[in-house]
Amino acid sequence: MEQKSQIDLGQLEQVAFAVQWKDDCCVLMDQTKLPGEETYLRCKDYREVVRAIKELIVRGAPAIGVAGAYAVALAAKQALQLASASEQMGFFEKATAEISAARPTASNLRWAVEQMKAVVRDRWGAGAFEMLNQHAIRIHEQDVSCNRAIAGFGAPLVVPGEVITYCNAGELATGGIGTAVGVIIEAFRRGRVSRVYVCETRPVLQGLRLTAWEMHKRGIPFTAICDNMAATVMKQRKVTAVITGADRIAANGDAANKIGTYGLAVLANHHQIPFFVAAPSSTFDLETPTGAQIPIEERSGEEIIGILRNNRPKFPLPVFNPSFDVTPSSLISAIICEKGVAKPPTQKSIADLFKG
Amino acid sequence: MEQKSQIDLGQLEQVAFAVQWKDDCCVLMDQTKLPGEETYLRCKDYREVVRAIKELIVRGAPAIGVAGAYAVALAAKQALQLASASEQMGFFEKATAEISAARPTASNLRWAVEQMKAVVRDRWGAGAFEMLNQHAIRIHEQDVSCNRAIAGFGAPLVVPGEVITYCNAGELATGGIGTAVGVIIEAFRRGRVSRVYVCETRPVLQGLRLTAWEMHKRGIPFTAICDNMAATVMKQRKVTAVITGADRIAANGDAANKIGTYGLAVLANHHQIPFFVAAPSSTFDLETPTGAQIPIEERSGEEIIGILRNNRPKFPLPVFNPSFDVTPSSLISAIICEKGVAKPPTQKSIADLFKG
Repeated sequence: MEQKSQIDLGQLEQVAFAVQWKDDCCVLMDQTKLPGEETYLRCKDYREVVRAIKELIVRGAPAIGVAGAYAVALAAKQALQLASASEQMGFFEKATAEISAARPTASNLRWAVEQMKAVVRDRWGAGAFEMLNQHAIRIHEQDVSCNRAIAGFGAPLVVPGEVITYCNAGELATGGIGTAVGVIIEAFRRGRVSRVYVCETRPVLQGLRLTAWEMHKRGIPFTAICDNMAATVMKQRKVTAVITGADRIAANGDAANKIGTYGLAVLANHHQIPFFVAAPSSTFDLETPTGAQIPIEERSGEEIIGILRNNRPKFPLPVFNPSFDVTPSSLISAIICEKGVAKPPTQKSIADLFKG
Repeated sequence: MEQKSQIDLGQLEQVAFAVQWKDDCCVLMDQTKLPGEETYLRCKDYREVVRAIKELIVRGAPAIGVAGAYAVALAAKQALQLASASEQMGFFEKATAEISAARPTASNLRWAVEQMKAVVRDRWGAGAFEMLNQHAIRIHEQDVSCNRAIAGFGAPLVVPGEVITYCNAGELATGGIGTAVGVIIEAFRRGRVSRVYVCETRPVLQGLRLTAWEMHKRGIPFTAICDNMAATVMKQRKVTAVITGADRIAANGDAANKIGTYGLAVLANHHQIPFFVAAPSSTFDLETPTGAQIPIEERSGEEIIGILRNNRPKFPLPVFNPSFDVTPSSLISAIICEKGVAKPPTQKSIADLFKG
């Protein structure tokens, strides 16, 4: 097999790279600084990647998967500096557990870490880092081609008009051109999208900060709205599709995604607008029967209250801050992955896609 | 008729006063500074009140109505300083038009200004200010008793459990204890509300800043959420009612209210949770047949983008910022006003309430 020391991202016609591998470093765009500043973080230590995942410097289920794979390679490199094989394997074991647990909801992270661990299972030795580095690059390349395939399957589903997207499921959320945004980019190229409504996505504003930035870079006409304006946009404008990504998809097609997605799906349903979910097959967790079994990360209330800055109350302000919600498959018109499109009956369609 | 130089607000058991009349000044709590600071603005010039309405220092349809009435009294006082009756009436005419136009969607403001103008129609003279001052106080007192009556009619409709409210329809939005919040306060007193979910209400955060502050002051258990979390709260928690205010209600029962209300009503409908609108009769505009004829104020995009503070993009970020939306009466379980409760068939129920 051809040896690669880095992935050739130059051919991808991308406008941004959430994750790169350069000179044995995992290079992450610091998404907390967008859209104001485009800065990068070079991680040599897997713990820096874990921190970056926890702090949302890198986010988006597929991007976290790719970053997690590179983190495992870094962990192996660090492990190999220890004296004995047992110390090395102990370090590596602990490190991969930490990486896997950095965020609980997305399945891609655990999927990537498990893939990586399998590479060196019973084969730990001096060559571990090389093998893992190669495999992380393959996982990254796989994500790139998944995105392309998803865009190809998804674009024809979009009836020409305006679309709504949520959070960020674009280049910043993946290794490639994005899942939901990849579909939008391809549909736009084919003249099927005239405008993209970007929901700001409280509390972290991935829509207003990241998707708006991507749309601008791509030259795709867009309008940012607050999340609570989506219903009015659906009612008043020519919205023909809502397209989002996903962080985990259960065997029955229930999909966990950024908090607010479920409500958006209910609104789309009410307005008889198709609701599409786009995600690579690594997002599917067929061992989770339904959405009810997907763990939902709750993050600090500070993410919400921070908006008040210097105008905080002098009393404690109780908040509820779930980061994700679950959209039942009954509200999803189609799930688009690189293997094809799962339409209702979704459970059977998913099983069929994953048979081969 | 008894002469009053100010309204006795001490008996209202209120925790806050959006609008007060003191020493010939209209005193407004500066709501843009809440919840961090409790400061007041003393307006001697009607133009200060107009500015305060435009800048959301005072907001909430009924409170704007009361403030607008006091502004008309101030305008009369200012007019009377001019030399001739025709100059005075010219100034007064121009001033009332400015006050009426300060914000376009709420009907209470225009209602109050028209009421005030009628007081001095064909009776302009040295006593104009006194008459108008008295009438503004009556409008204020009317709002106070409206709120009490609304609370009394609304509380029994709330099935014991948790409730969701939106924006701020409380003491800060009215002259009294609030419309939607008045119902919640009364239902809480009767043991029918165990927790209030307060939607933050982007972009101006009236929920997170104002309703949360009111709930804290009242000692009512509450949890603040982002607007996009309401669907999850409806699905997971024991929500038995959604209660909001309104800025204008058409003859058929379509209700304009803060942007996001319509989406919330769709979500309540999907989850089979009753959706209540509480508003004084001054909010009804029976000359507007349906919601389609209600003008919707669009405010500056800066209200949305301002959230990025020092992290703004270097490119122009297009946004859509409607301040209100219209909830069709078909999604409203009941409209509660001081005259009683209008249930479906709403158009007929409203007509019946307004007959007497």
